[in-house]
Amino acid sequence: MASWLPIPSKSHFSLANIPFGIISTSAEPTHRPAIAVGQHVLDLSAFAQNNGFSKLTDFPTDQLKVFSQTTLNDFAALGRPVHRATRAYLQDIFRQETPYPEILKDNESLRKQALIPIGDVQSHLPLSIGDYTDFFAGRNHAHTVGTLFRGAANALQPNYNHLPVAYHGRASSVVVSGTPLHRPWGQVLPNPQAKEPAFQPCARLDIELELGMFISKGNKLGAPVDVNNAEEYIFGYVLMNDWSARDIQQWDPWVVLADALEGFRGKGLENEVPPKKYLDEKREDSILDINLEVSITTAKGNKTKITQVSSQNLLWSWPQMIAHHSVSGCNLRPGDLLGSGTISGLEAGTQGSLLEQTMGGKQFVKLEGGEERKFIQDGDSITITGWSGTADDGLVGFGECEGTIVAAIPRD
Amino acid sequence: MASWLPIPSKSHFSLANIPFGIISTSAEPTHRPAIAVGQHVLDLSAFAQNNGFSKLTDFPTDQLKVFSQTTLNDFAALGRPVHRATRAYLQDIFRQETPYPEILKDNESLRKQALIPIGDVQSHLPLSIGDYTDFFAGRNHAHTVGTLFRGAANALQPNYNHLPVAYHGRASSVVVSGTPLHRPWGQVLPNPQAKEPAFQPCARLDIELELGMFISKGNKLGAPVDVNNAEEYIFGYVLMNDWSARDIQQWDPWVVLADALEGFRGKGLENEVPPKKYLDEKREDSILDINLEVSITTAKGNKTKITQVSSQNLLWSWPQMIAHHSVSGCNLRPGDLLGSGTISGLEAGTQGSLLEQTMGGKQFVKLEGGEERKFIQDGDSITITGWSGTADDGLVGFGECEGTIVAAIPRD
Repeated sequence: MASWLPIPSKSHFSLANIPFGIISTSAEPTHRPAIAVGQHVLDLSAFAQNNGFSKLTDFPTDQLKVFSQTTLNDFAALGRPVHRATRAYLQDIFRQETPYPEILKDNESLRKQALIPIGDVQSHLPLSIGDYTDFFAGRNHAHTVGTLFRGAANALQPNYNHLPVAYHGRASSVVVSGTPLHRPWGQVLPNPQAKEPAFQPCARLDIELELGMFISKGNKLGAPVDVNNAEEYIFGYVLMNDWSARDIQQWDPWVVLADALEGFRGKGLENEVPPKKYLDEKREDSILDINLEVSITTAKGNKTKITQVSSQNLLWSWPQMIAHHSVSGCNLRPGDLLGSGTISGLEAGTQGSLLEQTMGGKQFVKLEGGEERKFIQDGDSITITGWSGTADDGLVGFGECEGTIVAAIPRD
Repeated sequence: MASWLPIPSKSHFSLANIPFGIISTSAEPTHRPAIAVGQHVLDLSAFAQNNGFSKLTDFPTDQLKVFSQTTLNDFAALGRPVHRATRAYLQDIFRQETPYPEILKDNESLRKQALIPIGDVQSHLPLSIGDYTDFFAGRNHAHTVGTLFRGAANALQPNYNHLPVAYHGRASSVVVSGTPLHRPWGQVLPNPQAKEPAFQPCARLDIELELGMFISKGNKLGAPVDVNNAEEYIFGYVLMNDWSARDIQQWDPWVVLADALEGFRGKGLENEVPPKKYLDEKREDSILDINLEVSITTAKGNKTKITQVSSQNLLWSWPQMIAHHSVSGCNLRPGDLLGSGTISGLEAGTQGSLLEQTMGGKQFVKLEGGEERKFIQDGDSITITGWSGTADDGLVGFGECEGTIVAAIPRD
């Protein structure tokens, strides 16, 4: 899909993508919605106010105010048919042979106002998160970590294959890519024999490679979501680093819409347990197929790719997670965030946490420049990236999720 | 403290109280802040718009808009000195010998507009909850339940006396008193030997008597709260029923401000473990002293008080919970809700859950009219109430938190 706007062939933000985010600029500090296109963003607030959406017929005209909100929650809540129509329309706007050249391509005034180099914008949390639930759907990760703690025979808990296990996480400490993080303090047993805990900075700080998913429309308390209709409740996806030992989730700021990944799907891990009816999906290709990578950059500047893995290494699909989450009657709300759990393969170099790569801290991961790590050191920076598709057809990528650990704040 | 407004002597909402809530009326469906006074509420939106606060000097005048918000979050965020001044001023307004009779006592027009019989208003969730953390500070409950599951020798987990244990709960399913709840479905093992879980309505639905606390001002990510300054972060308290097996929290709609309970405090349960410095409170009377009661009303109309217990049955204080919650660097936000955990004594009739009162479902609790229960049946209604003080000095009470369980929604 060629564009009149120059887009580098390896850009994650091809016209096949159209990810949504929240930006501000030094000239206009108000947070507002935008899409990323190649090396630019389109300020949707300015675009909407200047009749940019005037040719988009499948949009409730009294809802154009969603593009002047400070988060994407109201846009997400409009539901997937509206997201689909909006994305298709914005693809048309940027297409080489756009049917509406007067809107942007030939409208120099609006281009100047609404098309901003991506390096000139500040990105913010795209949605206000009501609740955050972190699943544990990466069975390879669950099995490897379970083996470390309980031995191979008891690696998976008895319920693991029967339902998508999850824990409920904290929404306040979800931060956007680029936010530096202090090493946390906590009470820990200094050794396995100790009777008294010590209060000290975390010595085994780890990363967890995850995908995050945002809910678009919610369900009412007491009204579960049908697994075969659950796709309609999905707004989009982000890359996520679930900093372990700290309960901080960090993500890239661009939300890739569910429709942009519709063509990149397949089977997940095989489950020998037949699913209960409420988890029984008719669709067979319901696990997303995204190439994921994790790199570590040390304080000395050595950058090493430590993980390369497909997101198909999940036992449960997003519709199954939604169906299970709501089956007891629990309500989801627009902007709720669900995490996949750590995504790992079984071979070396495919595991999404250092805990797995170091066999529980027993062996080193070798880095460039002769460095090595068991866990994250102060000054280490972690970068997660991910994409689907090809440069020929246009990549559908997430950009990068980056975070640096700085020293613990001293305590008396 | 006598009032020109008739207040029944046994009212929970004496002038010593002044609890805050969010109301609407059939004439004006907009949600807005109010206080409860005896059998009336004062609509703070109408009061503020008609210069009701014109004599309140210790209030930032550009912040009067907090009284026209649909939640109390912005008022809570103004901090405890502002809450203290506002409560004292409203006490002055209603006092028999009010220094400002022209504001309300002698202002018939404003009385007609802003003073509403409490039976004519609908109550709503008073704050928008960002995150909800449920502690487990009721050591008697923890010990009794731990004994049921693991035996007396291992009743408490090794870390129990070292730090306030908590789990992170869901904010979306917190509902206000009076909301009927369907019995939930879930996957459970039909018997201890079973290998296959069954999908069925919950058979052991229980209640948990708790106090809830709302955060007023938040702390920044990475900046812990000092335990000896943590009182300043408290907005107020509610009664809470933590419906177990469903992860639904239900509460009474009136928030009793921290200052209203300042005179009702004492020591909690003794901890043989010396606290780490970050948990070491100088103040010795830091546990609230509130009389708590739980009643069950069956579908046949038999009402039985099943629990009477003091809130001093806690091992950890709210400041200790705040200090521990934030010590790793976790940020709290205005409107965050913290739960105490189930509050139980050790004797019969003092335990805040049926699990304890029935010894894990092994014996019946006897009810009026010859009825009996092991767990909650469809049609049962649970009422929690609580108060401090005396009728002579004016009760500081919470009103009632009520919820009825209705049958599970049929599933195919």
